[in-house]
Amino acid sequence: MANFDLMRRLAKHSGGKIILLILDGLGGLPYNVEGETALEMASSPNLDRLAREGSTGLSIPIARGIEPGSGPGHLALFGYDPLTYDVGRGALEAAGIGIDIQPGDVAARGNFATLDENGLITDRRAGRIPTEQGAKAVASLQDITLPGVDLTVREVKEHRFAVRLRGDGLSPDLNDTDPLEVGKAPLLAEAQVDSPEAKHTAELINDFVLQARNRLQHHLPANGLTLRGFAGDPELPKYGDVYKLKAACVAVYPMYKGVSRLVGMDIVDTTAHDTPLDEFHYVADLWDQYDFFFIHVKATDSRGEDGAIEAKAAVIEEVDAALPALLDLQPDVIAVTGDHSTPAKMKSHSFHPVPTLIWAPATAMIDRVNGFGERQCIQGALGQFPAPDLMPLLMGHAGRLARYGA
Amino acid sequence: MANFDLMRRLAKHSGGKIILLILDGLGGLPYNVEGETALEMASSPNLDRLAREGSTGLSIPIARGIEPGSGPGHLALFGYDPLTYDVGRGALEAAGIGIDIQPGDVAARGNFATLDENGLITDRRAGRIPTEQGAKAVASLQDITLPGVDLTVREVKEHRFAVRLRGDGLSPDLNDTDPLEVGKAPLLAEAQVDSPEAKHTAELINDFVLQARNRLQHHLPANGLTLRGFAGDPELPKYGDVYKLKAACVAVYPMYKGVSRLVGMDIVDTTAHDTPLDEFHYVADLWDQYDFFFIHVKATDSRGEDGAIEAKAAVIEEVDAALPALLDLQPDVIAVTGDHSTPAKMKSHSFHPVPTLIWAPATAMIDRVNGFGERQCIQGALGQFPAPDLMPLLMGHAGRLARYGA
Repeated sequence: MANFDLMRRLAKHSGGKIILLILDGLGGLPYNVEGETALEMASSPNLDRLAREGSTGLSIPIARGIEPGSGPGHLALFGYDPLTYDVGRGALEAAGIGIDIQPGDVAARGNFATLDENGLITDRRAGRIPTEQGAKAVASLQDITLPGVDLTVREVKEHRFAVRLRGDGLSPDLNDTDPLEVGKAPLLAEAQVDSPEAKHTAELINDFVLQARNRLQHHLPANGLTLRGFAGDPELPKYGDVYKLKAACVAVYPMYKGVSRLVGMDIVDTTAHDTPLDEFHYVADLWDQYDFFFIHVKATDSRGEDGAIEAKAAVIEEVDAALPALLDLQPDVIAVTGDHSTPAKMKSHSFHPVPTLIWAPATAMIDRVNGFGERQCIQGALGQFPAPDLMPLLMGHAGRLARYGA
Repeated sequence: MANFDLMRRLAKHSGGKIILLILDGLGGLPYNVEGETALEMASSPNLDRLAREGSTGLSIPIARGIEPGSGPGHLALFGYDPLTYDVGRGALEAAGIGIDIQPGDVAARGNFATLDENGLITDRRAGRIPTEQGAKAVASLQDITLPGVDLTVREVKEHRFAVRLRGDGLSPDLNDTDPLEVGKAPLLAEAQVDSPEAKHTAELINDFVLQARNRLQHHLPANGLTLRGFAGDPELPKYGDVYKLKAACVAVYPMYKGVSRLVGMDIVDTTAHDTPLDEFHYVADLWDQYDFFFIHVKATDSRGEDGAIEAKAAVIEEVDAALPALLDLQPDVIAVTGDHSTPAKMKSHSFHPVPTLIWAPATAMIDRVNGFGERQCIQGALGQFPAPDLMPLLMGHAGRLARYGA
């Protein structure tokens, strides 16, 4: 029985309140035998207290050795095995920048590219133009119209953008138009299955590309484009259905709001400048309205990618100092973890298991770990576990699951 | 390859003798950071010695976060993944009170209910009548006869009873007759598949219910009944076939005898007042006749459900004091574990992994754990493992498995 069938069968409508605090890219590495990780070097008395009073361990996001992207990393923590729920990249990219994807929609990732006078690609990423320049190119596409279709085109970052078509009779069963090498022309979109919907959608996409080419001819080096990862709504099982949870997402970046929306969480309005303390205050404001809060803190990952271990530790200290705002709410269960590791030493996401703590006064095994750190978590009561097991653990700790069998 | 296919392929008819001692609901929690669990606070020099000389770890009965019932908890320790072998509740209930279930039999769980003058249910559990009263209602049903069927009706507890039909041409493919709400009449049994056997069995069940209603009319509040969980013999793979083991069950409670019978163990006669030492003496008496002994001690779970941590520790001390009676037999492998945790703090079964030790002088990794306790087991050589892996581990420790591959 898959995890979700089991959850659907056992989840109750009552039980404790759960906070899932994800510090993006939390895990790290020491630089040498004497060294400490960012989490270990941070002065974080509140996190240490939660670790001392609760259970600790390490979560494995995708599989051993596999470096997670942010989408799969979060899906795993939400209980969706990323190797089973391989959400189409188009849908993830679109949802990630806040484009709502509903059943029947078709989304795709776009790349601006540089074309020569014969229409052959000379740079598949248009020289990785700055984001402002990408946004200008996207702005020039806003007046494109397609028959019977509500079209959305939005900048992602640099040469990347996302497209969503909404209308009747669409299908995502199309090939990528990126030929994957220079010296070739972008491919035409073609139906990958023999269906009127796919053929119709291919015509719409080719119409879109033609209109876009006309508008982009003076936008060198972004005078062409390719589209990839056509995808519909992944129709993921929703939190309300699977876990019987009314769940809210408090995140600043669109990407994390997008993934949360795909699993059925309500998205709390935030601003780009919200601090962790601001995020915790949103939770306090909405405390009575939800059973489950997912809170996302981005800067741990960003400082890890910068290679700035002390700055990453400072972010953790900022979160720690704000934590009383959450603890004052007297939640039944708090989990603190990350969607993947981002060691400053590697300046990148990495495959390493992620330090995790579960604090739950009524139900947590109090292990003998006295602080929150990678090497301490190795000794913890949770052991090393697949990230999709976190949600069942939180549900169990919150008393929200019926007994299995007599 | 499923575990059982591997076992069937590798199991030998020779090798060491194995004792599996299950202390029901063994695992627990400390009440606070300074506290100890029942197992940790118990003075148990013999268990500590086995832990010191053997390997320790924690078994996960069903899946992380899932609270096990007793049936699935035991099936898991016997090697049957409870998510795969979802034994019908009727068969488990019947087997649990010692009703033998064979291929072709149909069993169901029964509830006495209260009906009003129009035959509508006013209480689905007949006011949870005391067990003695339930037994009287069951006694009044003993003279019911059904054509061509050997009928068994037996009290379980309070308003609950079990029914078994034995005869030719029966099928368990029937709906529950419990409408699951008051103000409705019990449902008729109907065939859930289009087969003569199911239709015939539905007629027999409806005949049984009619005869029962006549006999129960003066048994208020138990003047009606519903039947649920129709099930046949789950036809579980048997110990003799899978493991090549001649296995005996020494348990006091019918439920545990029932599960053991379903997996092909011989059931040793016991009395309701047998102590752990009495149980160990049965093992000694039969030592030469079996390869494998499952011994079940119930009181650890009962004291945990009472919330009596010191009484639970006292049960563990009683088992520990009796252990030399087992050790004197010089078994090759002893495992001590539980089917689930029952923390006194929670007064309930719980999802927490269960402390486990494997002592095997010839083959066990001697880890650095010096006593038997939850927090010590976190550090043990067995790590945290799915409970259905215990049997292959015991088989390996006993030298009863051939090498896999050249």
